[in-house]
This record gives sequence, structure tokens and C-alpha cells, in this order.
Amino acid sequence: MALTHGSLAVSAALLLLATGGPGARAQAPVGPPRADPRRLEARVLALGRFGANPEGGVSRVAFSAADIAGRDYVASLMKAAGLRVRVDAAGNLLGRREGREPGLPTILFGSHIDSVPGGGNYDGDVGVLGALECIELLNAASLVTRHPLEVVVFSDEEGGLVGSRAVAGGLTPDALEIVSHSGLSVRDGIRAIGGDPDRLASARRVGPELRAFLELHIEQGGVLDEKGFDIGVVEGIVGINWWDVSIEGVANHAGTTPMDRRQDALLAAAQFVLGVNRVVTSVPGRQVGTVGRITATPGAPNVIPGRVDLSLELRDLSAEKIRSLFASIEAEARAIEARTGTRLSFRPIDATAVPAPTDERVRRLIAAAAAELGLKHMSMPSGAGHDAQDLAPLTPTGMIFVPSAGGISHSPKEYTTPEQMARGVDVLLRSILAIDAGALD
Amino acid sequence: MALTHGSLAVSAALLLLATGGPGARAQAPVGPPRADPRRLEARVLALGRFGANPEGGVSRVAFSAADIAGRDYVASLMKAAGLRVRVDAAGNLLGRREGREPGLPTILFGSHIDSVPGGGNYDGDVGVLGALECIELLNAASLVTRHPLEVVVFSDEEGGLVGSRAVAGGLTPDALEIVSHSGLSVRDGIRAIGGDPDRLASARRVGPELRAFLELHIEQGGVLDEKGFDIGVVEGIVGINWWDVSIEGVANHAGTTPMDRRQDALLAAAQFVLGVNRVVTSVPGRQVGTVGRITATPGAPNVIPGRVDLSLELRDLSAEKIRSLFASIEAEARAIEARTGTRLSFRPIDATAVPAPTDERVRRLIAAAAAELGLKHMSMPSGAGHDAQDLAPLTPTGMIFVPSAGGISHSPKEYTTPEQMARGVDVLLRSILAIDAGALD
Repeated sequence: MALTHGSLAVSAALLLLATGGPGARAQAPVGPPRADPRRLEARVLALGRFGANPEGGVSRVAFSAADIAGRDYVASLMKAAGLRVRVDAAGNLLGRREGREPGLPTILFGSHIDSVPGGGNYDGDVGVLGALECIELLNAASLVTRHPLEVVVFSDEEGGLVGSRAVAGGLTPDALEIVSHSGLSVRDGIRAIGGDPDRLASARRVGPELRAFLELHIEQGGVLDEKGFDIGVVEGIVGINWWDVSIEGVANHAGTTPMDRRQDALLAAAQFVLGVNRVVTSVPGRQVGTVGRITATPGAPNVIPGRVDLSLELRDLSAEKIRSLFASIEAEARAIEARTGTRLSFRPIDATAVPAPTDERVRRLIAAAAAELGLKHMSMPSGAGHDAQDLAPLTPTGMIFVPSAGGISHSPKEYTTPEQMARGVDVLLRSILAIDAGALD
Repeated sequence: MALTHGSLAVSAALLLLATGGPGARAQAPVGPPRADPRRLEARVLALGRFGANPEGGVSRVAFSAADIAGRDYVASLMKAAGLRVRVDAAGNLLGRREGREPGLPTILFGSHIDSVPGGGNYDGDVGVLGALECIELLNAASLVTRHPLEVVVFSDEEGGLVGSRAVAGGLTPDALEIVSHSGLSVRDGIRAIGGDPDRLASARRVGPELRAFLELHIEQGGVLDEKGFDIGVVEGIVGINWWDVSIEGVANHAGTTPMDRRQDALLAAAQFVLGVNRVVTSVPGRQVGTVGRITATPGAPNVIPGRVDLSLELRDLSAEKIRSLFASIEAEARAIEARTGTRLSFRPIDATAVPAPTDERVRRLIAAAAAELGLKHMSMPSGAGHDAQDLAPLTPTGMIFVPSAGGISHSPKEYTTPEQMARGVDVLLRSILAIDAGALD
């Protein structure tokens, strides 16, 4: 059957096959074409040459020369795949493929290619190259969707979801002044990659322009790998609350101050670190709580710490649960004050992200596509932040996770097999086609 | 009775009065002349002008211009008091008053005038100006001792007992290369204050040259002040052992790593800090244990710490007790490793000081002098390091503590009243005269 002239009927037929039409399970693979694991891996490795670090990963921080070169590489792939390429005012790289029904909103999908310093080859890249793979599969099948499709490479994801925040209209002037890992301010960085920080409003996409957003990404955790699952259907991106916690004791001479005369801020901090862990693990659920930063002042081996500053981070899909955990942690703090003669205070930090649940219908499409492909899939939250969280309030949004070997991420040791990536692309493409066929209408 | 020509008989008579001769207690003060609280305080304040900081203390770090100016001031007081002034090769400032019996060893007494950055006006200064006060009291009474007397201002006490270590022959070439708070290496610093780092051996004093060493000092702790005592008879300077402790866990994403999959080095460190406190307070005694420095790596709010480095310090008068406490702490570490999946290792640091007990006979002389003066006195360890610890192995050594208000030290808030200082000087002078009269022979 020739697919050279795509039609609604063809899409619907593919959808039927994709979602378990009669006989589909027992046959050799039918339905939409399947991703090529080799091509995917070759491109991941090719992209990994831009900013390659000696450990085998990449240090391709946003706005760096490596980032610019990597984006040029992706833009060349986009053009070769027939996409119309542009850079929006926020520096997002977009490749558009028109649909066959004029006036329909865009199905947007993609991820990012910037990395943390000392990062790996899979975080972000899999989602971008997987999105391109979808386009090439459609090209090869000469299938034109009803809706326009856009592949997006969001700018500066690792620096604070800069590009996707701009798309959602949430990038503040303050955020432009932050100095990124490249050494450039975000403002100058956006300029360096072809954006226009003075015209950010033009990068904003309003709901009616978009039909959906989909992001394929590595899990960055070890759950899928450990349990032997292929696909994670992301329930949402957890909310993140940060606090600066300061503990005031009394600095004193470590030799001349008897043990029972101390107001040791570090002793109180140790109780606090254990208290946070106890509170967070004392209720069921997948919430996490972390103290990642700690400083004792004056910080000499022979001086009792008079002050400790530390960070507190809580994450959960429910803002209410975060509030309730924090209330318990505050109660711990009051008890520690009473026991240790110190004073604990909390300052909320503005880096807070509210929980961003994905669209329930999109989750069902993703799960159905995985089931149709015979893939083991599970629902799970995303503990990490993603561009998808900025899109979720804007348009029906879904995220597809593929396994991270050993749960390792933000490290040159990141790894996802070619087959695992390809399975993620297969699920992505079927989800796009289901949406294109009207599954969300 | 004229005292213009001191004699053994006179000294012995004074000693008799000082140690409770018949009728002495019931009379108005007799015996050696008594220190002048006003003169002492005036000089403390005068010395405090060199390196005065805005908070009312001094930042007179060793080898700085303020240190040099302060030493010049003290040297001028020494000269005015008739002392023969010299600077030895280690930069120690010495003022000598000859005795009347040729060939007798020197009674050495003094302290230091360098401060920590942001220090106070009493740490060290009281001992130096108190020693000078003794000389002036002897001058006023025209009393010449049998033994030569030397007032010493040790160089760079706060930087590691530099001057006294040189006197004991223990200043290593490595120690000369350390960069002091002044910005100068110890080597260049010693040169800046008139010493000669290439001839350090000449600063060494051997046992037979010295009859005794006495140091008057503020307690730097709150025990005397809290209990309302006048005089601390120092039992010895505690031994200090330092370790660098490193805790290796696994750094991981704070959002994507479930609570039960973490090997959080800071969670292990918190248990360690509490364990050190528990071990040190679980046995009777005045031992202290402190974790004063802590670093978590990578140290970001959103990354589980993969490594923590911290300091461990233990102090006690008994080296055996320090060993036994450390063994218990090591056992705690093994238990923490098992619970947390981390690895704890200890690296002993060479800043270790062995316990330096003072001379028991000198302690008795000091206690007797205090009793004679009707002063409340108690035995106590020195939790802080002092030049006296370097002299203790060399010659019979004693230390006299006076109260520190609120136990505060190494701070502009250091304070000791004029009367408290004067009582310390009175005890010092009587102890010197007792030794001069042969109490240790």
C-alpha cells in the first residue's frame, strides 16, 4: 500500500494498528515505520563530538562555542530532513514541517542539546535526535500529517529552562542577567545563538497555536533500568521548593569550651540533616528531600561552629504534600533549637517550581502506544525538571522516559542502548500520530 | 626596713610572708609589693592601640606593622624598667635583669602580644605586661633576685607557637615556609621583626640555662568566670589530635534518586558529627571533641552529596584517653558505613600536640601563693595551646590563669578586670620569688 499521499484515512489506519487493531499483536511489526537504532546511536555519537570531554561525555554548556556548533549540526539535520528552520527570539531552534490541513495547531516535540559541565551524551540529545528520527520516518513513509509538526531544541535548559520559559511567557528580565556557565549573561548568550533578547515576547506561544507538546527524555534515575522496564509514562514533573536554612549558635574555642557549655551550630545542623531524612521517609510516596550544600562558619578545626548555612530541597508531584513535609521539618527545627540552644531560620528561595502534571489523555496515548509495541511501561513522576513543565500549563503535554543505565545522569557515564532509544522514538511517533488523528479532540 | 640591697635573707623573708608566715593572714598586706591594677589596665589599653580594630579589639597578627609597633612599645617599657633588651634569632623579644648570684640559671616568664585576626586586648598581652609589672614591682622595692630574670615576648604564638618552638629546638624548616596572616612567610616574618631564620639554633635554650618558666594568661574559657574563682592553676596544656575525615558516598540527582536508593555522604556525616559528640560525652572527664570544618561535594542544593570532608579534633591531658576516644569514634564510623553504604576514612594531621603537663612543684607554689593572697583558686587543664607547652619539656613550667569574662576569647569582646589581672600578677611575682628562694631546688 502506497503511503505517498497521506490522508486522514491513512493516519487513522495507522492509529488502528498502533493501538492494537485486530491481528496487530500477532503479526510482524506493522503500523508506523520503526526507528533505526543504529542511525540514532550514530547521531548521538556525532552530536557528542561537539564539546566532547576526555571522560567520554560532553561539556556543552548553553551559549558556548560547542553549543553553537552542536545546534548548527542539528539545524543541518533538520534542513536535510526538509524542515523549515528558524531560531526564535529566545534562541530556541525550531524545524517545521507543514501539515496538510490548513489552520490546524502545531504538534510540538523535542528537547534540548545543552549540557551541564561534565555532562553526558544522552540527557536532552535523545529527545532532539529522537524527534528528528520521527520526521525522517514520516519522510521515508511519505506520510504527511494533518497538523503541522515542529521539532524544537530549547535553549539553555540546564541553566533554568530558559527557552521553554520564554515560550510560556515566563522568562523574567532578571533571568536574563544571570551569568551562565558559558561566561555570558543569558541575555548575551541568547544573542550569541541567534536570538533577540529584546523581542522575547515574540517567542511566546499561546495555547491555540499548539495542539500538544511531547518530550522524549532519558529517565535520569534508575527505576526503569532496575525494574527492567522500557518506557516510563511521566505523570508530571515534580514541584521543587528550595530554602536557605541558617543555624545560629555561638562560635567558641574548641579547646577551652567544655562539652556541656557549647551552642554548636554544626551539632544542630547534624540533627537537622537527619530530621529532614526522617520526615521525608516517614510517609508513603515518592517525595524526596535533600540537603546538598553545607557551610560551617568560621570553619576551622579548632573553633566550635557558630553558624551553619545549608540548603533544603523538597520535591513532590503534590504541592500540598511539600507544604505538609515542610511543616513537619519546621517542627523538627523548633525541637532542635530547644535541645541545642541554637536558632534555625528558613528563607524560601525563588527557584521554586510548582508541580506540573502531564495531560491525562496524553499519558493514556503514550501507554497505549507502548502496549501496542509490546513494551514494558510504567507510570512515574519526573523528579528532574524538564522543558515539558513549562509547556504543561499551555497545551496538552506528555513525556516519555527511556532507561538510564544505573540511573546515572549529568555524568559522562550516562548511557541508554540504541534499542532503548529506538523504542522511545517508536512510542513518540505513535503518540504524535494518535494526536494527529484526533485522539485529543 | 630598707630593701635597697636585696639579699637571700630578704627574699626568704618575703617568701615566708608570702607563704603564710606567722601573723601574715591577719595583717594588712605585707610581703612582696602588690600589682597596680590601674597601671596594668592603662598599659593593656596602650598596647591595644597597635592594630586596634573598629570593634574595640586588635588585629595584630604576627609580623604585621602593628605587631612590630607593639613590640617596639613593649621594648621601650622593658628599657625604661632597666632590662637589657635583645631579639633572638626566632624573633623572640627578651628583656633581661641580672641576678645577684653569678652562674645561676634564668627564671623566664612572659607570653606573647601577637593576636588572631579580629582578636582582643587580653590574650597574651596580660602575660607580657604582667611580667613587666613584676619587674617594676621589684625595681620599686629595690629587690634583686638571686637568679637572672628574663621577660619574654614569644614571636608568632597564634601562628603555631613559632617563637617558643624555636626556643625548644622544635621549629622545622617546613614551618618557616608557612605563609602567616601577615602575608609574609614565617621565615620572612621572623626577619621583619629582627630575627635571623638562618640562625634559629642560636635561639634554642637548653635545660641548664633555665631554672623555670612561668606564664600568666587569660583562661580563654568560662570556668573561672562562671564559678567566681580568681586564679586557675594550670595542670597542663592538653594534647591535641587532628584528623581529616572523608566520607565517600555517591553523588546523584536529588530529584530522580529515590530516598531508599541514596548513598548520601552528608547523611553519613550528620551521623558522624553526632557520634563524635556522643563518644566524647559518654565518659567522665574534661576531654573535648569538635567537628569545626565541613564541606559537601559537589555542594549544590539539587545534588545528593557524593563526598563530605570534615575535621575531627580531640583534646585531653591524657594521650591515652585521646587514643581510646578515637578508637570508639572509629567504631562509630564502621557502624555508619554499614548503615549508609558510604566509606569513612581518617587521615591524621601533623598539627598534633602531645599533652604537656606542668611541673607539679610549680603548681603547688602557684596554689600556695594564691592561698596566701586569699584568692579563690582551682586546678584546671588548659584546653588552648600556649607557649608554655613548648617550655614544659625543657624546664619546670607553670601557668597561671585569670578569668575571661563570659569565657570569650579570640574576639574584641575579650575582657578581664584590672583587679583580676593584678591578682594574677601578684601570684606570678610570689611564684617567681619562691623559685628564686630555692623552692624547686
